Amino acid sequence: MTSPASVNRQITLASRPVGAPTATHFALAERPAPVPGEGEVLLRNLYLSLDPYMRGRMSDAESYAEPMAVGDVMVGGTVARVVSSRHPDWQAGDLVLAYGGWQDYALSDGRGLSRLDPGMAHPSLALGVLGMPGFTAYMGLLDIGQPQPGETVVVAAASGAVESVVGQIARLKGCRVVGIAGGNEKCGYVVDELGFDACADHRAEDFPQQLEAACRQGIDVYFESVGGAVFDAVLPLLNTKARVPLCGLIAQYNDTGLPPGPDRLGLLMRTLLTKRIRMQGFIIFDDYGARFGEFLAAMGEWVRQGKIKYREDVVEGLENAPQAFIGMLEGRNFGKLVVRIADD
Amino acid sequence: MTSPASVNRQITLASRPVGAPTATHFALAERPAPVPGEGEVLLRNLYLSLDPYMRGRMSDAESYAEPMAVGDVMVGGTVARVVSSRHPDWQAGDLVLAYGGWQDYALSDGRGLSRLDPGMAHPSLALGVLGMPGFTAYMGLLDIGQPQPGETVVVAAASGAVESVVGQIARLKGCRVVGIAGGNEKCGYVVDELGFDACADHRAEDFPQQLEAACRQGIDVYFESVGGAVFDAVLPLLNTKARVPLCGLIAQYNDTGLPPGPDRLGLLMRTLLTKRIRMQGFIIFDDYGARFGEFLAAMGEWVRQGKIKYREDVVEGLENAPQAFIGMLEGRNFGKLVVRIADD
Repeated sequence: MTSPASVNRQITLASRPVGAPTATHFALAERPAPVPGEGEVLLRNLYLSLDPYMRGRMSDAESYAEPMAVGDVMVGGTVARVVSSRHPDWQAGDLVLAYGGWQDYALSDGRGLSRLDPGMAHPSLALGVLGMPGFTAYMGLLDIGQPQPGETVVVAAASGAVESVVGQIARLKGCRVVGIAGGNEKCGYVVDELGFDACADHRAEDFPQQLEAACRQGIDVYFESVGGAVFDAVLPLLNTKARVPLCGLIAQYNDTGLPPGPDRLGLLMRTLLTKRIRMQGFIIFDDYGARFGEFLAAMGEWVRQGKIKYREDVVEGLENAPQAFIGMLEGRNFGKLVVRIADD
Repeated sequence: MTSPASVNRQITLASRPVGAPTATHFALAERPAPVPGEGEVLLRNLYLSLDPYMRGRMSDAESYAEPMAVGDVMVGGTVARVVSSRHPDWQAGDLVLAYGGWQDYALSDGRGLSRLDPGMAHPSLALGVLGMPGFTAYMGLLDIGQPQPGETVVVAAASGAVESVVGQIARLKGCRVVGIAGGNEKCGYVVDELGFDACADHRAEDFPQQLEAACRQGIDVYFESVGGAVFDAVLPLLNTKARVPLCGLIAQYNDTGLPPGPDRLGLLMRTLLTKRIRMQGFIIFDDYGARFGEFLAAMGEWVRQGKIKYREDVVEGLENAPQAFIGMLEGRNFGKLVVRIADD
């Protein structure tokens, strides 16, 4: 699995996808492993996180982050071991959370590196429940969603890395929690393993009816990461004073144009007005970076106590990252998708 | 102008409009003036407020308030004088803010009555800058919009009762304020009299270009009461972290169906997501009723100091209320629309 230290395998953006990405939009390059200059650190990536936001970076449409250039190494969060350091704050052997990208080795000037417990039993969790996805769930649900005991919270993509945590936190806060997931296996997991009260299958023909039946008191908080037909079923069920944290729209990321009419933009606004709904987009580290410590303390405790469960979908080998990513956009992963790049 | 005390003229909902209301949707009835029972108060309505929300009450579509029934007296806020009272808290001669409706006389059991200074020089202001419209402006802008000094605040229907106050408060808070209004006269008023920094004419062919030219730094707060083509021009100019208090959608109230495609519902959500925008509907007394005193103290002082200006469009005679209301939905009023029902 590991490469010789002299070679750095990199997966780059070969061309910009229009619609769904395919293998042809990625390229595997082998380059000499980089050498750290003064003030730099050489990182060996161990685990790479695959996340839906990366689809946005592959396009040049305006979004919350600069797009990648064609030829760039694909971006992504990694857990890495410091191989060598010419930076006073870091030493060989340190375990770090980095933004090391889809490659074996990365250089860093220290910015954006976070120290992890070097003996951490399960370092990939720093990419999942104890990292960006867990943090996204925590702040989006609690700060924007503000769930109150007894309220109904609905979570799309409910078995996902972010969403599975959203639902479990909502349960801890005394809410009735309804998941939306694709297929019996994921729905069963959400209810039986994660303890959600119900789950509607968005692949079923009667999905809107399933959702309505599971939300007899309407929906007070809808944590949105999907959009499209899933949101269409949610919209008429939203209660007065509902809150809709907007975390992602994975069902729309591969769209190449607007869908046919009628134009429901005004309908959405009318619903927000007459039901006094708050809908708000957020980007976790930009909006809440200063509260990461608060999150980590709370979530670390919940995970230790077994109150928050998680599931990882670990793909072996950097070379398999493109197929795993393509599958994730189609909902084929099951749990937090992580690529094991190297044994530690 | 006044009727004999024995007759109560009432304007009722004759039929539900589909699309724009016309005179045929209203009826004028003459009924005996009501007689207060034990615990009741007889009110003589002096001024009636006409407001866009009333259009919603005429339909039976789901909205934030129960629709009126056909045959009901049209609802509305009034300034009234107590004629006689069998309620311990009220006496003949008291000046009150009431929800007395489109009629000469109303009965009240005291609920929803607010006492006004009986010698108030300008009692109709209790229906405007010192009443529901001013309160709507104050809370919507400050609580949801959260304008910061130096930010750009855009207000649609800028010469309107609510919106003219929004812009002036935003100026007091150190913002750059851009209005949107229909025609040269209203645009001139907004800039020259109210002190807005600029105003774009939504009736001009180059309206989107005018708005963009007036918002070189983008839009940080958009106070929405119009919707439709005005919002279409605003949407691409919204900045990252913009706030959109949703107070009304007057351009859409007469719509009989959804406009043709493409469907931009997903586009709006994508914009809220990628720009991390907060869009939130509100209904002033339901959401903020407890803060009316805070508003009245602040606004009363601003009005006394001449820092907030207002303009009334006073229509003489209850019988002219329907035409005035129809004209308001077409933007033909200029200033807070009030009907003088009777001399005091």
